[in-house]
Amino acid sequence: MSGMIEPLARMVNQLSKLPGVGQKTAQRLAYHIVSLPEDQVRELAAAIYNGKKQVRFCSICGNYATEDPCAMCRDDDRKNGMLCVVKDPRDVAAMERMREFNGQYHVLHGVISPLQGVGPDDIRIRELMQRLSDGSIKEVILATNPDVEGEATAAYLARLIKPLGIRVTRIAHGVPVGADLEYTDEMTLSRAFSGRSEI
Amino acid sequence: MSGMIEPLARMVNQLSKLPGVGQKTAQRLAYHIVSLPEDQVRELAAAIYNGKKQVRFCSICGNYATEDPCAMCRDDDRKNGMLCVVKDPRDVAAMERMREFNGQYHVLHGVISPLQGVGPDDIRIRELMQRLSDGSIKEVILATNPDVEGEATAAYLARLIKPLGIRVTRIAHGVPVGADLEYTDEMTLSRAFSGRSEI
Repeated sequence: MSGMIEPLARMVNQLSKLPGVGQKTAQRLAYHIVSLPEDQVRELAAAIYNGKKQVRFCSICGNYATEDPCAMCRDDDRKNGMLCVVKDPRDVAAMERMREFNGQYHVLHGVISPLQGVGPDDIRIRELMQRLSDGSIKEVILATNPDVEGEATAAYLARLIKPLGIRVTRIAHGVPVGADLEYTDEMTLSRAFSGRSEI
Repeated sequence: MSGMIEPLARMVNQLSKLPGVGQKTAQRLAYHIVSLPEDQVRELAAAIYNGKKQVRFCSICGNYATEDPCAMCRDDDRKNGMLCVVKDPRDVAAMERMREFNGQYHVLHGVISPLQGVGPDDIRIRELMQRLSDGSIKEVILATNPDVEGEATAAYLARLIKPLGIRVTRIAHGVPVGADLEYTDEMTLSRAFSGRSEI
């Protein structure tokens, strides 16, 4: 980091540790930050540190929360018997952006991945089964990613939950809205085909 | 920012104000930051805020510095009669990465741009002329960007400095090393042609 004074070099170094931020981007960001008024930079730094410090996990659903249990788990309107199982908190945010699901969530914090040494005991499956034991949940929607680990985890959970007499569903695979059939891979097209519905 | 708790939403909002960071990237960064250990996040936030707070301007060269005058301006080895004029501090860093120039710098903090209402009095030209008045500088290297404003500023400075009997040079324009003639624009090629040198 020649030609760069120490506080700037340290900022660049820290920024370049973020995902998708290389040395060049980190430099651009650092020079931008230095050129900002001090109170704006204080706000940015505070939002980063306080964001981290104030966020905890909800002991029920496993999502990020400021209180435990989280607002969604305390919300009686959401106790409609539907439970959506996702891999991590950002998937909850994605589902919520859809504004269609109004049930509860369960965040696994990972998926079963033998290659990476992640087994069923390493993710929040025990907590899920415990939640299901009181009989209030009527349908479990498995919304893990449509990749190998996500599918395997969904299949594993389905086998575990079905014997409890709970309806288990999986989000549909198919052609993304706005996509072009010509550029859709065979796997997706095959899933879209087999999952076709009457119109 | 539905489905996102307030501290996270605030972090996303702050991060998305950075240049080149959109809503999606900010979310990805925020979720990453929240998943980091607290001391790493403290380091990041501190590097950002302290970086901003500790950085001031050198009153001589105008570059970012921790002390005034900066280390480069105090360095006697760099008082070799050469002064490199650049647009902003990041250009100093770029020149220093080259590891070939061992003179002093002068940061203009902008270029003349009538369209954006930036005149000669709005950038550090007066300070430059003051530095040149003691006769210690023998060559001024104009290293502003090869764009319209950069060229205009270089031309303006050359007209101002030449009468002082100081050598004024301009960095070369030409084909970037590793580039392909076929994909080089006509302006650059024309500059490379007219600036050709004997081999």
